Amino acid sequence: MSKDFETVLRKGERLDDLQCKGLFIIQNPSWFCFGMDAVLLSSFAVVKEGQNCLDLGCGNGVIPLLLSAKTDGVSFTGLELQEDVAEMAQRSVCLNHLEQKVSIVQGDIKGATSIFGAASFDVVTCNPPYLTSGHGLVNQADHKAIARHELACSLTDVVSNAAKVLKPGGRFFIVHRPFRLAELIHIMVENRVEPKRMRLVHPYRDKEPNMVLIEGVRGGRAHMTVEPPLIIYEKEQVYTEELRRWYYN
Amino acid sequence: MSKDFETVLRKGERLDDLQCKGLFIIQNPSWFCFGMDAVLLSSFAVVKEGQNCLDLGCGNGVIPLLLSAKTDGVSFTGLELQEDVAEMAQRSVCLNHLEQKVSIVQGDIKGATSIFGAASFDVVTCNPPYLTSGHGLVNQADHKAIARHELACSLTDVVSNAAKVLKPGGRFFIVHRPFRLAELIHIMVENRVEPKRMRLVHPYRDKEPNMVLIEGVRGGRAHMTVEPPLIIYEKEQVYTEELRRWYYN
Repeated sequence: MSKDFETVLRKGERLDDLQCKGLFIIQNPSWFCFGMDAVLLSSFAVVKEGQNCLDLGCGNGVIPLLLSAKTDGVSFTGLELQEDVAEMAQRSVCLNHLEQKVSIVQGDIKGATSIFGAASFDVVTCNPPYLTSGHGLVNQADHKAIARHELACSLTDVVSNAAKVLKPGGRFFIVHRPFRLAELIHIMVENRVEPKRMRLVHPYRDKEPNMVLIEGVRGGRAHMTVEPPLIIYEKEQVYTEELRRWYYN
Repeated sequence: MSKDFETVLRKGERLDDLQCKGLFIIQNPSWFCFGMDAVLLSSFAVVKEGQNCLDLGCGNGVIPLLLSAKTDGVSFTGLELQEDVAEMAQRSVCLNHLEQKVSIVQGDIKGATSIFGAASFDVVTCNPPYLTSGHGLVNQADHKAIARHELACSLTDVVSNAAKVLKPGGRFFIVHRPFRLAELIHIMVENRVEPKRMRLVHPYRDKEPNMVLIEGVRGGRAHMTVEPPLIIYEKEQVYTEELRRWYYN
């Protein structure tokens, strides 16, 4: 880590190697650190040459950063509600010298259309909070709670606002927990972001899935492809060959 | 096969061993023969002691027959639109001496409530036609077309009528093709038959699923369990151990 990198860190922050084309990311462990779900979403998402992409609730910016390195998209915007988190994400963008490709915008998902305009993105991604606001929540609305629980926005807010900012035919990519799959699909269909492709992620071959990746198309016709399961571990602490490809591509 | 069995067959029919507790079934191959989907649905469905069960569009009666042997339910009704098919199913019931447990009723799924009354079943099952009426259909509405295409009733008809005849908290079990999963889940949620449990069936471990089994609960709260994949073949022509248990239990 160079001296340059160290001086950019604030109290409580650390610098992590994204293990992808030399990218680094600033994280604050007392707030929230990205997980495998964000990395898998960035591999599941398809951003074609010249397309622009919006990540809703980008947190530390991990998804725009990874997508800028993994895809041929032309611009990547992260929308983040919390000012201090957005400011930290912006410092990661600068650190990686990606100011020309990646922008961080502070604002509310529920106001996405007024910030960016309707039908303005080819691709929208989201790694939302997985739990409802009532779901076992004991703490106040701190950074961790906002990342995990639907305090600042609901799943319907995410999907309905994604639908609005997507161009017709634009693609939506989301990662969620399987226990909310029925709600997610229902909300997508209701908002005319038709679920077209799904992949379940299983920790081990014979275990229940613990993540689901879904691609929707704004205004698409009803026809879904369910892909083969994505298995994370071949055996304890050993990733499968496919997972390694997803992680380190 | 005894003389008794042979005399019960009409022209074009054959008698098949259901490979389950000595049951036989009459089938007419020029109409439609049951497939693995019906067998898997009968193993996926849960019918508890004393419960009554309705199969919507029962065809040759394979699902009521199998459920009567596999579960502790008290009565099993099959509703079939086509008179000649219902009559054939009734002969299978008699052949197996199951008149006390299994009834075949000729009638339309869309009129299920007027036939049976609202909120009258603990369990409803369905192995519906998988294709929409427009989906590559070239033939007239013959027996095969009605079994494969939504000519006589749509997926919405199936689910909305299942919802009506189910008791509150009653369970709905359906098998379908994964390409219609989003529609199926959306229609279930719309009709308040909440999807609670799902299992994808894959021909081989690393292949896309070709069937999906779903359990819904009338009036249930949103929370889905996605089970580990059910794999059919270990290798070519060799069933997995789990599939053999499902098939021959």
